[in-house]
Amino acid sequence: MSAIQNKSWLFTPGPITTSMATKEAMLHDWGSRDASFIQTNVRVRERLLDLVDAAQTHVCVPVQGSGTFAIEATLGTMIKKTDKALVLINGAYGKRIARILKILDRPFDVIETPEDVPNDVTLLKTKIQNDPTITHIIAVHCETTSGILNPIEEISRITANSGRKLIIDAMSSFGALPLSNNNIQFEAVVASSNKCLEGVPGLGFALIEKQALERTEGNSPSLCLDLYDQWKSMEANDQWRFTPPTHVIAALDSALDQLVNEGGRLGRQQRYQNNCTLLVKGMRALGFETLLPDNLQAPIIVTFKTPSDPDFEFEAFYSALKQLGYVIYPGKLTVVDSFRIGCIGQVGEEQILGLLDAVNILAEGYKTLKKPNKLTNKQ
Amino acid sequence: MSAIQNKSWLFTPGPITTSMATKEAMLHDWGSRDASFIQTNVRVRERLLDLVDAAQTHVCVPVQGSGTFAIEATLGTMIKKTDKALVLINGAYGKRIARILKILDRPFDVIETPEDVPNDVTLLKTKIQNDPTITHIIAVHCETTSGILNPIEEISRITANSGRKLIIDAMSSFGALPLSNNNIQFEAVVASSNKCLEGVPGLGFALIEKQALERTEGNSPSLCLDLYDQWKSMEANDQWRFTPPTHVIAALDSALDQLVNEGGRLGRQQRYQNNCTLLVKGMRALGFETLLPDNLQAPIIVTFKTPSDPDFEFEAFYSALKQLGYVIYPGKLTVVDSFRIGCIGQVGEEQILGLLDAVNILAEGYKTLKKPNKLTNKQ
Repeated sequence: MSAIQNKSWLFTPGPITTSMATKEAMLHDWGSRDASFIQTNVRVRERLLDLVDAAQTHVCVPVQGSGTFAIEATLGTMIKKTDKALVLINGAYGKRIARILKILDRPFDVIETPEDVPNDVTLLKTKIQNDPTITHIIAVHCETTSGILNPIEEISRITANSGRKLIIDAMSSFGALPLSNNNIQFEAVVASSNKCLEGVPGLGFALIEKQALERTEGNSPSLCLDLYDQWKSMEANDQWRFTPPTHVIAALDSALDQLVNEGGRLGRQQRYQNNCTLLVKGMRALGFETLLPDNLQAPIIVTFKTPSDPDFEFEAFYSALKQLGYVIYPGKLTVVDSFRIGCIGQVGEEQILGLLDAVNILAEGYKTLKKPNKLTNKQ
Repeated sequence: MSAIQNKSWLFTPGPITTSMATKEAMLHDWGSRDASFIQTNVRVRERLLDLVDAAQTHVCVPVQGSGTFAIEATLGTMIKKTDKALVLINGAYGKRIARILKILDRPFDVIETPEDVPNDVTLLKTKIQNDPTITHIIAVHCETTSGILNPIEEISRITANSGRKLIIDAMSSFGALPLSNNNIQFEAVVASSNKCLEGVPGLGFALIEKQALERTEGNSPSLCLDLYDQWKSMEANDQWRFTPPTHVIAALDSALDQLVNEGGRLGRQQRYQNNCTLLVKGMRALGFETLLPDNLQAPIIVTFKTPSDPDFEFEAFYSALKQLGYVIYPGKLTVVDSFRIGCIGQVGEEQILGLLDAVNILAEGYKTLKKPNKLTNKQ
C-alpha cells in the first residue's frame, strides 16, 4: 500500500481507490492506432482471459463505457430474439439485467429471492426442467446491492448439466473471487476495469466462448454495443472500431501488473478478505449490525443496517466521515434502511483501521458534528 | 505550450496530445456519488452548453464511451420510427450515421457527394421540398475522413426554413470552429471529450433542445444509450445512472479551464488555423499535395495525397516519423491513396515546425531508413 495518495479513501463498490502507479500510467497520450498502444491492448485482453483460465476457449471483447454497457452489449449480442433467458435476481443488478432484456425485446423469465437470500438453485432446477425454451441462465456472482455471494458453482453445474448456457455478471468479483473456466462452464463472463482489478472506470469487457460468439453476427440491435462486430474488427488488426479510452486502458494494464505482484487473484482475495473481516468485526464492536450472516458475505462490500437511534442521520454521518477522509456508500436495499462500506480497491488494514477510528470518533460524539454526536448505539 | 511532455506528439484526429495539466487532473480518485465530483459534473455540463450559447434552450447529456456512442445514443433517442432522417454524406462518418440508422431501423435517405466535395445544399433543398416525410437533417460539421468543412450555416438555414430539425455531428469541430445557437438552429449537437476540447477519450455528449428531448421517453432501443433516461436521472440528482468515467471527466474539466485561458473557442481556433497554415505551406514546399483546396480545408486535419514515387511506403514513412517523435495518421479515403496529419490537440508552431523538419529529413534520405530514403518527390 503506498503512502497517502488521496485526500480521501473510497470505501465504495467502484470507482474505487487506485494506486498512484495506476493513475500515473495515464500521464501519457497514446495514439489509438499506434503499435505501442496496440500491444498494450493485446496484452490486457490476454491477461483478462488468463485470470479465469479461458484463453483456449474464450475471447476477450472490451467495450467503452461502464460495466452496464458491457452487460447490455453481451445480452444484445449473445441472446437472440428466439432465445429465452432466465435471470436470477436478488438485487438491483439482477433487476437491471431483466430491464435491459425487456428493452432489447428478448424473451426472459426471472427467479427472484429477497436481497439477503442467495439465488434459489432448487427453483432453478425446476424451472429449467419445466421450460425447455430456456436457453440461457444469467447470474450475478456477487450482488453489490447487498454484498451477497451467489452460489455460482452450483448454478454452473445445473446449467451445464441441462445443456443450457450461463452468462455471469462478475462485475464486482472479477479478479478477486474464485472464478475459473476449469470448474465453471460459462458462455460469457462480464466485468469492468474499476472494481477488483483496481483500474479506473471507463472500460467494460466480456470474455465470451469463441464458438458461441462466431454464431452471433447480426444479433445485436446496436452498432456500438455489437460485440460480434467489435470482436471481428479487433481480430483483424488488434485495433478498436471507435476511439478507445486509451488512458483508461493504460491504467488497467498497470493495474494488472500490480495484481500479479500482489500474488494474483488469490493474493488480492486475501487482502480483501482481511479488509472485510477487520471491518465487520470493528463495526460490530461499535454496535453496527450487518445485513448478512458471515457465510453469505462476499469480501467485496458490506451492508450495515441503519442504526435505530433516531439521532443517526446517514447524510450527516457520511459527510463527517468524508471530512475525516473516508468516503462510504449509501444503501440500495428496497426493504431495510442501510448503508454500505466497500472492502475493495487500493486499501488495506491501515485504511480499514483508520475508518473504524473515524466511525468511533463519530460514535463517541465528535465536537463539530451537528447530528451524529448522539449516535449512541454502542453495545 | 508546455515543454516536452511526451515521447511523441500526436498529429491525429483524436485521441490527441493533451497538456500535462489535463493528464495530472487524473491523479485523484473521485467517488462518483460524492459532492465534489457532482459539482465537477455540473460545471462541465454547463460549460459545454455555454460554448455554443445554448444554456437557455438546450441541455447537456453526457454519455460514457467514444463519440460514436454519443452519435448512436442521440439518433436512437431523437429519431422515432415514424420519423425520417436525411443524412448528408461526404465521408466515413456520414456513412457511419447511415449505418447506425439502418441498424436502429430508423427510416432515412442520404445525399452523398464525393469526399472532396462539400454537402450539396441545392439537392438538400430539392429533397426537402419533394419529401414532406423528412423530419430531420443530419450533417457532419467537419468530416475528418478528408478534413473538409461542410456549409453548416447554410444547411441550418435551409433546415430551419423548411421546419425540419437539424442534428449536427460536431465531433471534430466542437470547441474550435464557429458553432453558435445564436445563428445556427440545431435540435442536437454531438461531440466528444478528446478532440478540440483537448480532453482524454472516454466521454461523448449531446447538447439537445430541451423541449424536443422531453418528448422522447421510450424512443431509445437501448438502456445505456437512452439519452432521455440519462438526462431525467441526471436532472434528479446530478449523478450518472451508471458508473461515470470519473478521471476522464476530471481531465475534461481541467481542459475546459485551459480553453478559457487560451481565449476560449476563438483563441483555440486561431492556434489551430496557424498550425494548419504552417503545416500545409511546409508540406507543399516539400512536394506534398493536399487533397482539398484551401477554401474547403478545416483547420482540424489535413489529407495529403500519397506521393506517386513508387519508393514511398506509408508504413515506413509513418514508423520513421514516429521514431523521430511524431505520430501521424493513415488515410481513410476510398478513392485516393492518402495520409492525414492533424492540426488539433496541445501542439503549436514549435511542434509543427519539428514535424516538418522530420519530414524533410526523411525526404532528404535518412540513413537508417529502408524505404523513404528514396522519397524524392520534391519540387
